[in-house]
Amino acid sequence: MAMGAECRCAKRAAKLTRMTPAISRYPVPTLAELPDDIRARILEVQEKAGFVPNVFLTLAHRPDEFRAFFAYHDALLLRDSGLSKAEKEMIVVATSGANDCLYCIVAHGAILRIYAKNPLVADQVAVNYRKADITARQKAMLAFALKVATNSVALDDGDFATLREHGFSDEDIWDIGGIAAFFALSNRMANLISMRPNDDFYLLGRVPKT
Amino acid sequence: MAMGAECRCAKRAAKLTRMTPAISRYPVPTLAELPDDIRARILEVQEKAGFVPNVFLTLAHRPDEFRAFFAYHDALLLRDSGLSKAEKEMIVVATSGANDCLYCIVAHGAILRIYAKNPLVADQVAVNYRKADITARQKAMLAFALKVATNSVALDDGDFATLREHGFSDEDIWDIGGIAAFFALSNRMANLISMRPNDDFYLLGRVPKT
Amino acid sequence: MAMGAECRCAKRAAKLTRMTPAISRYPVPTLAELPDDIRARILEVQEKAGFVPNVFLTLAHRPDEFRAFFAYHDALLLRDSGLSKAEKEMIVVATSGANDCLYCIVAHGAILRIYAKNPLVADQVAVNYRKADITARQKAMLAFALKVATNSVALDDGDFATLREHGFSDEDIWDIGGIAAFFALSNRMANLISMRPNDDFYLLGRVPKT
Amino acid sequence: MAMGAECRCAKRAAKLTRMTPAISRYPVPTLAELPDDIRARILEVQEKAGFVPNVFLTLAHRPDEFRAFFAYHDALLLRDSGLSKAEKEMIVVATSGANDCLYCIVAHGAILRIYAKNPLVADQVAVNYRKADITARQKAMLAFALKVATNSVALDDGDFATLREHGFSDEDIWDIGGIAAFFALSNRMANLISMRPNDDFYLLGRVPKT
Amino acid sequence: MAMGAECRCAKRAAKLTRMTPAISRYPVPTLAELPDDIRARILEVQEKAGFVPNVFLTLAHRPDEFRAFFAYHDALLLRDSGLSKAEKEMIVVATSGANDCLYCIVAHGAILRIYAKNPLVADQVAVNYRKADITARQKAMLAFALKVATNSVALDDGDFATLREHGFSDEDIWDIGGIAAFFALSNRMANLISMRPNDDFYLLGRVPKT
Amino acid sequence: MAMGAECRCAKRAAKLTRMTPAISRYPVPTLAELPDDIRARILEVQEKAGFVPNVFLTLAHRPDEFRAFFAYHDALLLRDSGLSKAEKEMIVVATSGANDCLYCIVAHGAILRIYAKNPLVADQVAVNYRKADITARQKAMLAFALKVATNSVALDDGDFATLREHGFSDEDIWDIGGIAAFFALSNRMANLISMRPNDDFYLLGRVPKT
Repeated sequence: MAMGAECRCAKRAAKLTRMTPAISRYPVPTLAELPDDIRARILEVQEKAGFVPNVFLTLAHRPDEFRAFFAYHDALLLRDSGLSKAEKEMIVVATSGANDCLYCIVAHGAILRIYAKNPLVADQVAVNYRKADITARQKAMLAFALKVATNSVALDDGDFATLREHGFSDEDIWDIGGIAAFFALSNRMANLISMRPNDDFYLLGRVPKT
Repeated sequence: MAMGAECRCAKRAAKLTRMTPAISRYPVPTLAELPDDIRARILEVQEKAGFVPNVFLTLAHRPDEFRAFFAYHDALLLRDSGLSKAEKEMIVVATSGANDCLYCIVAHGAILRIYAKNPLVADQVAVNYRKADITARQKAMLAFALKVATNSVALDDGDFATLREHGFSDEDIWDIGGIAAFFALSNRMANLISMRPNDDFYLLGRVPKT
Repeated sequence: MAMGAECRCAKRAAKLTRMTPAISRYPVPTLAELPDDIRARILEVQEKAGFVPNVFLTLAHRPDEFRAFFAYHDALLLRDSGLSKAEKEMIVVATSGANDCLYCIVAHGAILRIYAKNPLVADQVAVNYRKADITARQKAMLAFALKVATNSVALDDGDFATLREHGFSDEDIWDIGGIAAFFALSNRMANLISMRPNDDFYLLGRVPKT
Repeated sequence: MAMGAECRCAKRAAKLTRMTPAISRYPVPTLAELPDDIRARILEVQEKAGFVPNVFLTLAHRPDEFRAFFAYHDALLLRDSGLSKAEKEMIVVATSGANDCLYCIVAHGAILRIYAKNPLVADQVAVNYRKADITARQKAMLAFALKVATNSVALDDGDFATLREHGFSDEDIWDIGGIAAFFALSNRMANLISMRPNDDFYLLGRVPKT
Repeated sequence: MAMGAECRCAKRAAKLTRMTPAISRYPVPTLAELPDDIRARILEVQEKAGFVPNVFLTLAHRPDEFRAFFAYHDALLLRDSGLSKAEKEMIVVATSGANDCLYCIVAHGAILRIYAKNPLVADQVAVNYRKADITARQKAMLAFALKVATNSVALDDGDFATLREHGFSDEDIWDIGGIAAFFALSNRMANLISMRPNDDFYLLGRVPKT
Repeated sequence: MAMGAECRCAKRAAKLTRMTPAISRYPVPTLAELPDDIRARILEVQEKAGFVPNVFLTLAHRPDEFRAFFAYHDALLLRDSGLSKAEKEMIVVATSGANDCLYCIVAHGAILRIYAKNPLVADQVAVNYRKADITARQKAMLAFALKVATNSVALDDGDFATLREHGFSDEDIWDIGGIAAFFALSNRMANLISMRPNDDFYLLGRVPKT
């Protein structure tokens, strides 16, 4: 990347960190303050998305936890799987709805709309997956994910059998449960630090790109 | 370490993976099958603890998630903090109690007993921190952690103010909330895969070492 | 109104009733089948909104209940009040969030965005009013409304005193509680008949009018 | 009606509004203050029941909401239906029990006893319909009504199928759900304004008329 | 007692045990089958009350548990106390309301009406003690009793302090908590065996004795 | 028993009552203060167990309730039954886990370990019976017991049928439900008076006797 490009990115991201209202209860580092690997990741996501999602800026307050968080995220979400990218995001949105996490509903709702190419499905899944425009298989997937999110003590063989009847492999089930478990962490971190979703997310995926 | 020693370790750990009943719903890799870094970590913990906690063997089914999981764990639990090692484990045990996670209550209960040099405190904290032999400050810490674990949507400035009155810094509060959030993930993974605590944990820290 | 105009309206509304997927578990009457007063109301709302919200079409299955429903709605929502129009819609959206009612969150979320001239506030209030970009007075209003929605048995003098401290009159409090109570009915009817929000609502108020 | 009769009624009702303790947190209008249509309705119910149920006096504080409330009530409760009058009141009493609404349990409990000609059934249904002296069909009806009252988000095709197996038509199911939904409103209004049941209701229908 | 009198009592009680519908899921012994001490107690209560409350007949299926149950009941309820007899019954009725126990609400509701010489208070306390015609001190008593009944893990010094401010001694507090605890047992036994309240209880204490 | 032996016992027990921290919110009588029958029972249990469980000392504050409590306990727990002694204690431990009662989990956990000759089963059953090393029949027994403990209003014929399919007789079912009901009382008393488990219990049954 040419130096000029890097400068523009850095300025743009820096500007984002000065936005009001606050995006975290905790200090948000400037790009300049960050370790190289974290700054690089942030610039990369900015390049791709056109803005820096606040989860990157707010969690960067603790670099080691940042690295582990996104390593876990990538291991689950980027993994080859029997679940489509949209299905993985459905799990994120549905369980974040159950945990009342504003950041994750708004940010991953946007991602879900984009992956599913469907402007309605995120709001549907966040409130009541039973009434969403999704398949019976996807509803079974979300019922399982919500049980992991809200009542994991009661998981039993019957729950696994139901998913297998819908054609999910055991590795798919680990993906479903693992994503629900990871966002149990993520939702609580966002609520803890009062992570604010970027304004950009609210509209993303609702209108055709121009 | 001499080669002979290494061999003995490997055999011993391998033997542990053949134990009955099952320690996971998912396949448990043998040491030989594991990537070098993960095998090394497992041998290291075995050297230190005298056995391999099942969380290492069962999560090794997915090496990338294993690495992220323990990186996150170490970032939070090994970090210099205003919380003592015993206090961090109290948070683990209390929130695992709220989530009814057998593995974490039993395994981290043992660690708590050892760090606190107190054979009673783990069972107390797992059931009802209000009646535990701990300080008022520690009770406030656990009340906050349990709110993160079970009702994070309702966290507000008052909750932070209460902890500050007890002398916790904002970084300490991140530690408290972060550990509660991480074990929200951990408890759900253990319940998902039906992770079984090693028999060894039940007695650890209850009797003086001989 | 000229005849031609009336015809166009009727055709357009009729077309809406043929949409798929179903907007109700129950039969949806065509405009032609409806009593005159109900058809007139529907045409009026269509003229104003540019489309017919599905609540009008689906509840028209039972004309007497339709009339009473909208008479109640108008009595509460159109009444002069110490609450602004946006504040009334905040109550609708927050309590519909607590009741997981997709129709009311989506439809009244749109109305709230328009009244508040704020594209973000509806999603915020639907998930967690504590983190919304609203005033402390509005947060107290929503805390009361949510208590009416979810635990009205426990309402007591202290709840009224808190609202009075925020400057609400007793009539304002009736408005707050009354709207929460009316949407307790409305949310349950929408869930009962599986009322589907119009696709139009999802985007309304999110982008500047052109 | 002769003039003298009308006068006596007005005096009697006026006397009722001066009773202590308070029947509402809000001002209760005298008959003289009321719009003609509302006064007429109140005098009519007094003529029939021998006293004026407090719901009429307390809700008359807001005439427009009063009219809509009773229009909705009549549309649902007086409608020809596959449900008997007693069955409709069972739904009211059972869901009001779930919402802990004293006014509705006591007042509609009396009406249920009268319609069912059964002095025991109202107390049974208010506490635990499973142990009430009612038919299996009525128990299925109340299980559905309670799901509408307390967990309407989870209503699904299976719930409708169960009621159809018990011989309920789809219109009957709307009646069941609609009554549960209407009393979700009614219970919250009664709890909001602290509506007090008339003393008369407690004994009504418990002893044979003399 | 003359022999003739004894015979009449026995016949009358025997007749009660043949009533339909069933008063228990379990066999109900006839008076003749009972151990002498239990028969004597039953005849005594019948002499006093005019009928045999079904709790005596249904629990007599297991004489040892019967004896312990009533010994516990008498130790708590007949004990000299800072609580009046009516106040003790308020605790029974309020906590039985929280546990949805039909037998205890109906039977002890009757006893409460008689002790309090108040035909309304039992129905009020069973549904919502906040709106009952009782003193602030009695409301504090019932708030504590309900916490014992539904959330005893969270009892703390503050709860004791609140009751002491209302003038309750520590022994009074044991009485309050003890009665709530005893009826936690009693409510569950009644629900387990489907104990049916005698029809007589429903009307008792509602009308002046003649 | 020789006099010397009696003296040693008394001294030893007396010493236990002076232990710190407090074992009850209420005064704990010395052995000398106690009625003869209660002192005899306490000395008997001390002789057998080697120490006096605190439930005996703390409940002795009220001799009549003490007598009734242990009479009830013995009637249920010592009764000949289709349940083994270990199974009865499983019910105690599982329901005490649901009620978060520290005393009962710790004390009866010890007894369960001893009866079951299994050092792990108590901790398993206290947290999640689904993952305990017990039979399917025992899991069905605990599912029923937990329903009695937490939702007895919903018990129905289906619950009885399920247990009968597992080979339980109706008398066995009374035992299961009765023990769950009795510990509903016991758990609340322990939480009310802040009964502290003896330190001895924590280790009992975890290591082979020497």
